[in-house]
Amino acid sequence: MTEKRTEIRDLGEFALIERLTNDFKSKNKSTIKSIGDDAAVIDYNDKQMVVSTDMLLEGIHFDLSYMPLKHLGYKAVVINLSDIFAMNAIPKQITVSIAISNRFSVEALEIFYSGVKEACKKYNVDLVGGDTTSSLKGLIISITALGKVNKEDVVYRNGAKEGDLICVTGDLGAAYLGFQVLNREKQVYQENPNSQPDLTKHKYLVGRQLKPEAKPELISYFKDYEILPTSMIDISDGLSSELMHISKQSKVGCKIYDANLPISKDVFDLAIELNMDPMMCALNGGEDYELLFTINPKDEYKINETEIDVSFIGEIVKAEEGCNIITASNNAHKLVAQAWK
Amino acid sequence: MTEKRTEIRDLGEFALIERLTNDFKSKNKSTIKSIGDDAAVIDYNDKQMVVSTDMLLEGIHFDLSYMPLKHLGYKAVVINLSDIFAMNAIPKQITVSIAISNRFSVEALEIFYSGVKEACKKYNVDLVGGDTTSSLKGLIISITALGKVNKEDVVYRNGAKEGDLICVTGDLGAAYLGFQVLNREKQVYQENPNSQPDLTKHKYLVGRQLKPEAKPELISYFKDYEILPTSMIDISDGLSSELMHISKQSKVGCKIYDANLPISKDVFDLAIELNMDPMMCALNGGEDYELLFTINPKDEYKINETEIDVSFIGEIVKAEEGCNIITASNNAHKLVAQAWK
Repeated sequence: MTEKRTEIRDLGEFALIERLTNDFKSKNKSTIKSIGDDAAVIDYNDKQMVVSTDMLLEGIHFDLSYMPLKHLGYKAVVINLSDIFAMNAIPKQITVSIAISNRFSVEALEIFYSGVKEACKKYNVDLVGGDTTSSLKGLIISITALGKVNKEDVVYRNGAKEGDLICVTGDLGAAYLGFQVLNREKQVYQENPNSQPDLTKHKYLVGRQLKPEAKPELISYFKDYEILPTSMIDISDGLSSELMHISKQSKVGCKIYDANLPISKDVFDLAIELNMDPMMCALNGGEDYELLFTINPKDEYKINETEIDVSFIGEIVKAEEGCNIITASNNAHKLVAQAWK
Repeated sequence: MTEKRTEIRDLGEFALIERLTNDFKSKNKSTIKSIGDDAAVIDYNDKQMVVSTDMLLEGIHFDLSYMPLKHLGYKAVVINLSDIFAMNAIPKQITVSIAISNRFSVEALEIFYSGVKEACKKYNVDLVGGDTTSSLKGLIISITALGKVNKEDVVYRNGAKEGDLICVTGDLGAAYLGFQVLNREKQVYQENPNSQPDLTKHKYLVGRQLKPEAKPELISYFKDYEILPTSMIDISDGLSSELMHISKQSKVGCKIYDANLPISKDVFDLAIELNMDPMMCALNGGEDYELLFTINPKDEYKINETEIDVSFIGEIVKAEEGCNIITASNNAHKLVAQAWK
């Protein structure tokens, strides 16, 4: 070991990845885009392949005391597919590797794979490989997704231009509050194992946490209506964090309006009940797996015509202006990417 | 949980994978080969892409008390590339995901990545993505490798025909005995921390365990001399196990001659010293990452002309004859795949 010791927590994930990988230079002509977007891009003649991978660990990314194994299998696949859609590509294949301790039976694993299978069926992707191994403790899942896209249709994080409109699908903050509900019920249960969890009241929020869905219909709509977003990313860490990725990589600033943030009544009501700011839930909640994208204003009318739930939340501005959220009273607050979990 | 509980150890890895994945049916035209070979095969117009993935866990697959982090990074990449070569393909890209506990510093990770980088450089592959996350305990590595091959050149495990010659590169059993040496030194050290490990005597064996190499030169030779093996697999679990994969998937039997097994003097001498059978080390050792392949006898002279170290160890026979090893005294013993680790 070397003398200097830098703690990983002092760097943070993004700085760590940058530090570890910044002197890897790609040498193959077929490597079009390496680290730094939702997925890598590889050239195959006219088609391009996109590759994305995620690792999930019990106790870090999921808690089996409230995450049923079938949902876990489903979600693990969906969050990878979401990265492929965020490149404007169509996922085609996945590999699923798992490491398991002897706490798990074959039947438990079959339940996990039934969730993987349901996601494969729903999103029309093939499971083509993987690795199955023992772990000393806990369940570890690593999934890689491969997708196809025409060369001219790939959408990166770095193409947003001043004046572009910022759009987001669905609503925000629900998965985060679903997590809060599940966590609260877990604590109640731990204190009193005879209690029955009451999740029905928060069915929408819990569903968003346990069974997120990717957005293939948006990618199809883009294709059918010849819309090419200028940038796109999926919302895994939270709107603020993702907006800052787009801004940094596109070398622009952004301005979003709090009044335009899509917040469901369920999110609003529970946030208030829990003494939380609904807007903060929407900005920093994460795990909604909605798509955040920017378009040239000329395409605004096409987005207005879709039946897909898309909100215009703001616009791209000059880099010097930074990233801000504008309140109803027209005050600007600097956006801060805040990891809550 | 369901009522029935089957322990994973009662099934074994291959049966487990089969049980978990046998009702996944591929739906995409581009999925040429799914689970069941060294890598999956995906069609991209005239080129095909192969995908392989491996997961490595501290305490299961490696022991950091004698596996330096740099070697670990190198080896983790090489064993994935070996799977790509075993499809007769050229690896082009990899993704590397790691989960780490706070026991590891950023500097330690940098050392790991320096090994990854050295392997990328040596084998001319690009690191294009990955995931970095926390673990509650230990180091977990998941690597996916992507490679290219012309459609007509893919070599599967299932093409061996009666009369084909069975060939293997390099020599066998060394990585396994290297592991024994390291393990012995670890125990000596644990009993007496002042002892100095004496690894110089077994440099070759230890090197084969800590820094295995894949065999790109063989794949180039095949291309240059227009040799298309009828089947191929890399030796990760041991010669017997791999021969049985080829036999099962090709629906044939095999006959190998113990006198023809490539066993180095180092392996022979240490096996005798440790009271082990050198032949058993060669048959069941594993982790040598040599290539095992079969060829039509018409190509024998081409293999004889290469400067690459290739041994003819036997031939493919009818399925009814099973898989046997023939001794010098012409006795046949049934091959048994035996996992030692």
